[in-house]
Amino acid sequence: MASFDLSPPSGTRDFLPDEVKAREKIIRTIKDVFERYGFAPLDTPAFERLEILTGKYGDEGDKLIFKILKRGEKAATGEADYALRYDLTVPLARVVAQYRNKLGGIWKRYQIAPVWRADRPAKGRFREFYQCDVDVVGAKGPVGDAEILLAVGDALAAVGLPGFTIRLNSRKVLRGLLAAYDLAPEHHKAALIGLDKLDKLSLDDVARELEQAGLGATSIARLTADIGSSDQAARVRDRVAGNDVGKEGLAEVDTLMSLVQPILAGGAITFEPFLARGLDYYTGPVFEVAAPGLNSSIASGGRYDALVGMFSKEPVPACGGSLGLERIIFLLDEQQKERPPLGIPQVLVTVWDEATRGDALSLAAAARKAGVSVETYPGDGAIGKQLKYASQKQVRVALIVGPDERAKGLVQVKDLGAQSQREVPRDELAAELARLLPAT
Amino acid sequence: MASFDLSPPSGTRDFLPDEVKAREKIIRTIKDVFERYGFAPLDTPAFERLEILTGKYGDEGDKLIFKILKRGEKAATGEADYALRYDLTVPLARVVAQYRNKLGGIWKRYQIAPVWRADRPAKGRFREFYQCDVDVVGAKGPVGDAEILLAVGDALAAVGLPGFTIRLNSRKVLRGLLAAYDLAPEHHKAALIGLDKLDKLSLDDVARELEQAGLGATSIARLTADIGSSDQAARVRDRVAGNDVGKEGLAEVDTLMSLVQPILAGGAITFEPFLARGLDYYTGPVFEVAAPGLNSSIASGGRYDALVGMFSKEPVPACGGSLGLERIIFLLDEQQKERPPLGIPQVLVTVWDEATRGDALSLAAAARKAGVSVETYPGDGAIGKQLKYASQKQVRVALIVGPDERAKGLVQVKDLGAQSQREVPRDELAAELARLLPAT
Repeated sequence: MASFDLSPPSGTRDFLPDEVKAREKIIRTIKDVFERYGFAPLDTPAFERLEILTGKYGDEGDKLIFKILKRGEKAATGEADYALRYDLTVPLARVVAQYRNKLGGIWKRYQIAPVWRADRPAKGRFREFYQCDVDVVGAKGPVGDAEILLAVGDALAAVGLPGFTIRLNSRKVLRGLLAAYDLAPEHHKAALIGLDKLDKLSLDDVARELEQAGLGATSIARLTADIGSSDQAARVRDRVAGNDVGKEGLAEVDTLMSLVQPILAGGAITFEPFLARGLDYYTGPVFEVAAPGLNSSIASGGRYDALVGMFSKEPVPACGGSLGLERIIFLLDEQQKERPPLGIPQVLVTVWDEATRGDALSLAAAARKAGVSVETYPGDGAIGKQLKYASQKQVRVALIVGPDERAKGLVQVKDLGAQSQREVPRDELAAELARLLPAT
Repeated sequence: MASFDLSPPSGTRDFLPDEVKAREKIIRTIKDVFERYGFAPLDTPAFERLEILTGKYGDEGDKLIFKILKRGEKAATGEADYALRYDLTVPLARVVAQYRNKLGGIWKRYQIAPVWRADRPAKGRFREFYQCDVDVVGAKGPVGDAEILLAVGDALAAVGLPGFTIRLNSRKVLRGLLAAYDLAPEHHKAALIGLDKLDKLSLDDVARELEQAGLGATSIARLTADIGSSDQAARVRDRVAGNDVGKEGLAEVDTLMSLVQPILAGGAITFEPFLARGLDYYTGPVFEVAAPGLNSSIASGGRYDALVGMFSKEPVPACGGSLGLERIIFLLDEQQKERPPLGIPQVLVTVWDEATRGDALSLAAAARKAGVSVETYPGDGAIGKQLKYASQKQVRVALIVGPDERAKGLVQVKDLGAQSQREVPRDELAAELARLLPAT
């Protein structure tokens, strides 16, 4: 035996059956909500051509893309041509550009699937994790944006996580604000990256990043005063009052809040004038969702009217939102919400000896036809060992056919919960199982 | 706009909503069968440490592994450290070695997930495709092997593809046979690879490969005569009569057939003494399933008692089977089986003007609470355009609230199928929708 590291690659996980079942149940709940809003499912490959992904997520994002080596003779070059998808939004934009005619003018899709980022793994931060995305493509705001926020909120409430806060802003508010701080447009990108770190770094550290992004001392003083203010929103409203883009952004935020607030169930929505979101591609409203008990956001999204245009001659407006599955599961685990019971076989057919294996398999097949989950003990060993296996798997009923039962055409039916047993004729077995096992 | 190739990477596919729904339905059916046999779900990462995968699939398989470039400063080396999983069996073996104590003595798992192989793409051959695997770990044969075959057969019948033939052999039969042809054990691996090509190459071409594998002229003459014989099975039984391994293999095949044949529904099982299967890791029974209308096999598998031992101090017996999802879908499409209807929204709430957007969203939220799938028209435009969108999406009912309806507290309910309409008070809307929309 060679010596292997048998753990899954750093930042990835193996999911044993109870975890798979728990995750599937949550995914099913979120899908149901998305479908109730008229979103239809899309599936795309795990990897994309490298050039589709690069340049969409900002410099820091680009570094975290998992690249796939060329194959065959070209493997020796050490070059990559494909890359694992980094999110579900850029593949969506490619799909929209590729199938525009087929998809029609307005298209609503959801996708719940893994993405991969070569981030430094940490508690709650994985390199393989699931995103649950909803997007409306081909429509300008604000109705699509509103239903994205409502669907995300409904999904959180449905999985059992009410009490969230949707923190809303618009990239246009930020552009107006940076202009009001006298920052030239070419420095806005770097400044947004700096602002996006406000929830991770101290205000001083962010100020230093912004200084490097080209913001002057006076601007930084005004910015830090605004951020530190007890009424950020009022100060930002004043600050962008004379700026067209900024005013447009405020109107976007106000309209969206007025549409969502009266309907939103289970959570609140607030205006967060310094919320930036890290990804390059946002153009209008941006949001993230804060949940009690979580430092990072549980969902996020926004409008990205220029992304599809990077792949297509025509620009296509679009907006979307994404829920983080692992963060939802983390919170549910923290709350010690009950895990769904594991789908276990209800019946174990034991195998008396080699000569009766065929009998045991037939008995299992017959019981299975009645809709019961059944397995035949797959190993060798005494009946006692087989019954121990049944108990460990929480099997409800064990069937035994020894030489006596066989001669008489009977089956011994052991109710492992009630610790009782009965001998029944073979043709009454289905009825006896129906009596012992509640319908699932 | 840069110029991009917008198609998915060669050999991979985008699945639009109706395809996703069709695939999900088939996967659900197969899962249900697997769970009825007491298999529990496992999920593993898309990629594994490179050394976990290499050396398990034979030299030809190794070349088809998609490798992932190291990240950060090491990216420049052009070296790979991870690789996309090539099948679901080797990851299972790693999981079993890693969590042996947790999983117990005998463990039955299923996994339905994509795998990736850098094969040359061709009609029906993809680089990203789904495998549907069932495996019994920790038990020697033959009961586990029998339930694998029965579960695979049941799954095929359940998706609507009866009429299959399970072609069964044992690697031990082949080892006995190659010994009977005077081939030294060190040449067996190459000879098995040659025999595995019997369904792709001519007998002459296979003979040439076997010659290169070390088989002498006399042996090749005997082998080709055996293969060409009208009663392969009888000739092979004679040939291995004096060989312990060969006899053990025949007993394996005979036992398994006698257990499976009386129960197997929807298909047949036959002994195929030259069936080899390409993968290195098989040790005992091997099988593939032929389906009418398909040149390649629709399912395959076997016993691999030594694979887990490559990762673990203790050897762990195991066997399994794998259904190819894309081949199932190909056959169902060929048979023009009906696709399941797409889950489309049943109700579209139109938006009269900017001032009534909030009203429309509230109406949608109220209808949705009644369990109906509803979307609010997410774009701008006249009601006529919105109704056209509803027809294209096969929406059943459209709701309109114009200034008149609004003043009177009414909703115009348009039945788009019956081409009729009615005005109802808002508080009677739920009842009206229940009347128009059959419960799903």
